[in-house]
Amino acid sequence: MKCTATIDTRDVEELYINIDPIQAGGRLTVDAQKAAIAYSDGYSVCDNCLKPFRLDYINKPPIAEFHRDCAEWLNMDAVRLVPGARRGFQAVASSIVEKGDPVLLTALSHYTEFVSLEQAGADIHEIPKDEHNHITADNAAARIEEVTREAGKAPSILFVEHVDYQYGNVHEIAEIAKVAHQYDIPVLLNGAYSVGIMPVDGKALGVDFVIGSGHKSMAAPAPSGLVATTSEYADIVFRTTQSVGDITGRTFGIKEVEMMGCTLMGVTVVGLMASFPAVKERVLHWDREVENSNRVVDALCAIEGTQVESDMPREHTLTRINTMDSFDTVAKTHKKKGFFLSQSLKKKGIIGVIPGSTRVWKFNTYGLNEAQISHVCRAFQEIARENDLTVL
Amino acid sequence: MKCTATIDTRDVEELYINIDPIQAGGRLTVDAQKAAIAYSDGYSVCDNCLKPFRLDYINKPPIAEFHRDCAEWLNMDAVRLVPGARRGFQAVASSIVEKGDPVLLTALSHYTEFVSLEQAGADIHEIPKDEHNHITADNAAARIEEVTREAGKAPSILFVEHVDYQYGNVHEIAEIAKVAHQYDIPVLLNGAYSVGIMPVDGKALGVDFVIGSGHKSMAAPAPSGLVATTSEYADIVFRTTQSVGDITGRTFGIKEVEMMGCTLMGVTVVGLMASFPAVKERVLHWDREVENSNRVVDALCAIEGTQVESDMPREHTLTRINTMDSFDTVAKTHKKKGFFLSQSLKKKGIIGVIPGSTRVWKFNTYGLNEAQISHVCRAFQEIARENDLTVL
Repeated sequence: MKCTATIDTRDVEELYINIDPIQAGGRLTVDAQKAAIAYSDGYSVCDNCLKPFRLDYINKPPIAEFHRDCAEWLNMDAVRLVPGARRGFQAVASSIVEKGDPVLLTALSHYTEFVSLEQAGADIHEIPKDEHNHITADNAAARIEEVTREAGKAPSILFVEHVDYQYGNVHEIAEIAKVAHQYDIPVLLNGAYSVGIMPVDGKALGVDFVIGSGHKSMAAPAPSGLVATTSEYADIVFRTTQSVGDITGRTFGIKEVEMMGCTLMGVTVVGLMASFPAVKERVLHWDREVENSNRVVDALCAIEGTQVESDMPREHTLTRINTMDSFDTVAKTHKKKGFFLSQSLKKKGIIGVIPGSTRVWKFNTYGLNEAQISHVCRAFQEIARENDLTVL
Repeated sequence: MKCTATIDTRDVEELYINIDPIQAGGRLTVDAQKAAIAYSDGYSVCDNCLKPFRLDYINKPPIAEFHRDCAEWLNMDAVRLVPGARRGFQAVASSIVEKGDPVLLTALSHYTEFVSLEQAGADIHEIPKDEHNHITADNAAARIEEVTREAGKAPSILFVEHVDYQYGNVHEIAEIAKVAHQYDIPVLLNGAYSVGIMPVDGKALGVDFVIGSGHKSMAAPAPSGLVATTSEYADIVFRTTQSVGDITGRTFGIKEVEMMGCTLMGVTVVGLMASFPAVKERVLHWDREVENSNRVVDALCAIEGTQVESDMPREHTLTRINTMDSFDTVAKTHKKKGFFLSQSLKKKGIIGVIPGSTRVWKFNTYGLNEAQISHVCRAFQEIARENDLTVL
């Protein structure tokens, strides 16, 4: 019985202010917590599954309605749920990319974009970032030309991050999509750090696919996420099975090949749905979140030697910071080495900085309230002063 | 805010005896319920994710240990978690099957087996069932010969159900695997209706892959499941990414292509783990479950005209029953038509028979206690008598 015995109750969110770079947008709302308790059993949303027997047709709980609302909210034509953004990349790659096809992603792409394309057998190329750590339409255009010349055909898809995981920079998606479309290349938006925390309008961005992450940015349990697309591509990515049993003659209705039929049958879909009203509301207050992000960044920059590697002023709550000339100088002589920073923060009730990191690290202020933001600002500066760093 | 407002609290398991064919093995244990509450946040198991940054290496909670225990329990060499059994089929199909390859599954295969193979571009063939609704080694052998002759090469994989979803019959897996191996065809066991409720020994069965479903039979939240394999195939299905960013030179460590890196990052993995001790224990009492299944089937068979389409005596808790000459004769004149049966059952505190079904339908007695079994037996016979059917 040892496995159960050693699962400690998790109390990170109850006891600490959590600035972990990947966890901020996935904290459940209270409504989602309640729904998670009621729907934790395996096939809990299947009680009222009627013909044609597919998750997105279930009306009780209102999963069908949620799919429609979600598509409208993203200003896209159709939405399906998937077990994480990565499974959305996979569905699109598997539908659009033939083995050996050249494809483009970026110098800031997440590893899950690579593996989804690798799985599809793609010939993967990056679009370089510019000196400001941005993916630009100019670089995209140049790279499309280059790759097309080398491969003898145009890339079959272009994956781009709305907000990248390394710097938390917001990229010029509309411009990149416009360029890609001039070459008839469909564009997939990796919205793992945008869908659910900041406004996303798929049509305005001009992309063909919007991928969101439930557990990263939509206050939902893991694994959850979504693929949204246009009517042009819905029939391709959400194509239904054509299988026929060669002996039985069986066919399988409207089950979708890339979704593999139903996707999120319990706590994951209900968690997403229960948080959705709050998520729709919170993206309208993104300006406040960005302001909070800038307050913390400013407080850190006041510690002499500290540099922000992300865009300034911040346009997102995820930030990459360089403290090699501030906290890392302390680490060199501190008896706890680099661990002094995470440990000092923890003593002040703050968690989420990788233990040992004092050089280049990331944090995310998403969802913290004014008082928590003030506390985080103060805590960083107090730790600096306690360790004889100059706070300007 | 309408979505939240209309998610009713689910109370099926609290208020009723549930004999739904697919839900029985996915009811959470109390330990899993508790764990689900503590770990419902998105990336809740990632607090202590250290190098090499992969789910199955996390020690706190003890996810790494769980992977080892689970492989040992199934008598296989390696286990990975996936978002549902279907994602296990997908990982294996994507690794083993080349486009155009002939493959075999069976006349009793689940649609998710078809779609996973369809997605891989396979040329899919069924092994027929015999007159007892069994998949036999003889039929497998004949079909291997036939398909090989037609396709010009041997099937690249054979998918077979340990227990099929249509009849709940237990098939002669060891014999089928032996035959397939004579032709060097690897065998995937669909254990959605076995792993977690009855003993499964992968080596004794002689299969190359064991696929389990967390939400169907391991008392876990959805979507969850596992792929277990041998050391021979682990390097193929769990191969790590070979991607290199052509501009950045980035590589992505030991992320596995088919797993897409991490799979179940929160409530799903913790739910599986928390239920695991109880699951290991419960499979040891499978004989009691089968006995209970037979009690209900016997009670139904005592209603004149009722026929069991599954094997008799039952060797599983999932049963397909034909009541065309019993309950369906009532439906023909009842003012509620076929709905009288599900409604009468509901009045007696029993749920899970598809509303309207009185012809051929399925139920699952898994996990009910003695008193509940007695009540179900009595309820069916009472409903029969109330509607002037003869109970022998």
